[in-house]
Amino acid sequence: MDFQITARDPSSKARCGLLCSTGSIVKTPAFMPCASRAVVRACSPQDIAAVGIQAVMCNAFHLLIRPGSEVIQQAGGLHQFMNWPGLIATDSGGFQVFSLADRSDISEDGVSIRSPLDGTLIEVTPGLSIQVQNALGADMIMAFDDCTPYPCDHGEAGRSMQRTLRWAQRSKAAHDNSEQALFGIVQGSVYPDLRQESARAITELGFPGYAIGGVSVGETEAEMFTALDAALPELPTDAPKHLLGVGVPTQMIEAVKRGVDLFDCVLPTRNARHGLLYTWDGLVRINNAQYREDSRPLSQSCDCPACTHYSRAYLHHLFRIEEAAAWRLLTLHNLRFFAQLMEQIREAIGAGNLGELYARMAAITAR
Amino acid sequence: MDFQITARDPSSKARCGLLCSTGSIVKTPAFMPCASRAVVRACSPQDIAAVGIQAVMCNAFHLLIRPGSEVIQQAGGLHQFMNWPGLIATDSGGFQVFSLADRSDISEDGVSIRSPLDGTLIEVTPGLSIQVQNALGADMIMAFDDCTPYPCDHGEAGRSMQRTLRWAQRSKAAHDNSEQALFGIVQGSVYPDLRQESARAITELGFPGYAIGGVSVGETEAEMFTALDAALPELPTDAPKHLLGVGVPTQMIEAVKRGVDLFDCVLPTRNARHGLLYTWDGLVRINNAQYREDSRPLSQSCDCPACTHYSRAYLHHLFRIEEAAAWRLLTLHNLRFFAQLMEQIREAIGAGNLGELYARMAAITAR
Repeated sequence: MDFQITARDPSSKARCGLLCSTGSIVKTPAFMPCASRAVVRACSPQDIAAVGIQAVMCNAFHLLIRPGSEVIQQAGGLHQFMNWPGLIATDSGGFQVFSLADRSDISEDGVSIRSPLDGTLIEVTPGLSIQVQNALGADMIMAFDDCTPYPCDHGEAGRSMQRTLRWAQRSKAAHDNSEQALFGIVQGSVYPDLRQESARAITELGFPGYAIGGVSVGETEAEMFTALDAALPELPTDAPKHLLGVGVPTQMIEAVKRGVDLFDCVLPTRNARHGLLYTWDGLVRINNAQYREDSRPLSQSCDCPACTHYSRAYLHHLFRIEEAAAWRLLTLHNLRFFAQLMEQIREAIGAGNLGELYARMAAITAR
Repeated sequence: MDFQITARDPSSKARCGLLCSTGSIVKTPAFMPCASRAVVRACSPQDIAAVGIQAVMCNAFHLLIRPGSEVIQQAGGLHQFMNWPGLIATDSGGFQVFSLADRSDISEDGVSIRSPLDGTLIEVTPGLSIQVQNALGADMIMAFDDCTPYPCDHGEAGRSMQRTLRWAQRSKAAHDNSEQALFGIVQGSVYPDLRQESARAITELGFPGYAIGGVSVGETEAEMFTALDAALPELPTDAPKHLLGVGVPTQMIEAVKRGVDLFDCVLPTRNARHGLLYTWDGLVRINNAQYREDSRPLSQSCDCPACTHYSRAYLHHLFRIEEAAAWRLLTLHNLRFFAQLMEQIREAIGAGNLGELYARMAAITAR
């Protein structure tokens, strides 16, 4: 994987770049929708490409459970399995493992967890996570980390961060696929000193890219940015940086200003399935009765399949009858919005007016 | 609506035709998937057109409940509401009303039924059904009939058939939209004398098209064809004829040989959502473990989005995780098969070899 910085914002650390992997080039800053189980929910990979999405984030833990990494390896890897030519990242499974596991099941070796499918006990270790990710064959993979919960006291956050460092070392040692870029992960909860220490140590270990984890887990926005401000300056400037689990538009712009290049989040896709749509004129809650006879498209300026072909009234009807067709059309609309948003962010970096874009997004979006 | 017969099978009553309505021309014999609530489940209207579907069957009763006929009328009718340029038929709601109602709620006037949405008591009469269908604005609409249950003794079947005749008269009197073709419906259960009497009397009333109702309700295939053999010769040769609720490929071919032009059924779409796929090499039950690592498309010869882009292994995975994306892709595959089947039926009529096509379908499909 190769990362080239192509433009820099004169008044912040924001930059545009090209993230090149075997067979795909992604313009950064970029947003990756979650395709945890090798599919963006309700949509086909072909659908996603058609609305301008260039990269997706799959999940090693979900795919280990179903269909199993050997099935995907046998297919020739995730790109072939999904027939998705764009970039694929896999999350290590750390986040999912920790959201399913009791903290008491965490040992120095790894995490013991029962399969949500059949109750089998699985010992997820850094070695297993990397082995699975190597088999899945994504372009970008993540070190197995201990995702610190929130709230967490300084002592426990420090121990968790140190464990993440030791697991990063084991992840790096286990990594055995030279076509994949293994990203190191910064932890440290909301504590600037821990975030700084984590960023320094993970840089010391040396990775082709870095991710910030353990954010958007319940902390305030101010705490999140304090953590970013502590960690980001310690990471190598020229390496690509991924902020895990953040997709609120204004937060993405703020993170971009601090030097973040990549994002993944369930926000646009989950919001779509809950009927909350992003448009450049404001948010639309399609379930609202006001749209019952509204013959206009969701957004006049949008070229997604929902806006090109259907009225708010029809989408309102499909959503109310809980139609899968609605989930797909609304998801494609939100992903088109996010693709356009990232394009606007890249243009604003070139033009030096990220501030205006931030104000515009603050006015039209809710958290 | 205009119906032109363009070819006839020398050895049966099968014929090819063109069914022309405002803005659309449908080649017959044709199959209409069910879009009961103004959507073929899991698919967009655009999707359906792309796999070669030319006509859909919506349901007046479902649409009266949600979103309400006034919403669709306000949108400019079903074509505008769905943005579907092809032919639209609406079922009168008779079948749904009777599947929901207790037979004791049926009076000479109509049927009292509680809305499945909010429990409101709705008095569905021939007048209301036609008024709703006039408002919905489909190209083809159905008289409100008493769908005789199965089994039913001769006396009750006769009374039900006579009621259907009186309701057909009232439907015709209520019809007030000259751009829509109102189809009369033949009933009479499995009794040849009643089917014959019904067909004669409904022809006497005079309609631009005729439908056979009360079939595929539990009777044997032999009973169904006995009913068809009694009714069809009594209907005007040149009028289009629709067999309601039949979609089994071999049964459609047998009905075509008796002079039927149009079909609607949930079979291909429901089967798809249950993982049962039609291919020219045989049926595929995509949930079967044998497809777990099968890198081939569902069908080598199919040009649907599922076969063009994805492997059986990927579709198997999507189906197993209960993904809406699977329901859509599999539905589009089955609809593509049905569109191709109807094309083959039309070609076989021209070539005089419907028998061979029947044998082929009998070999590859199950009931």
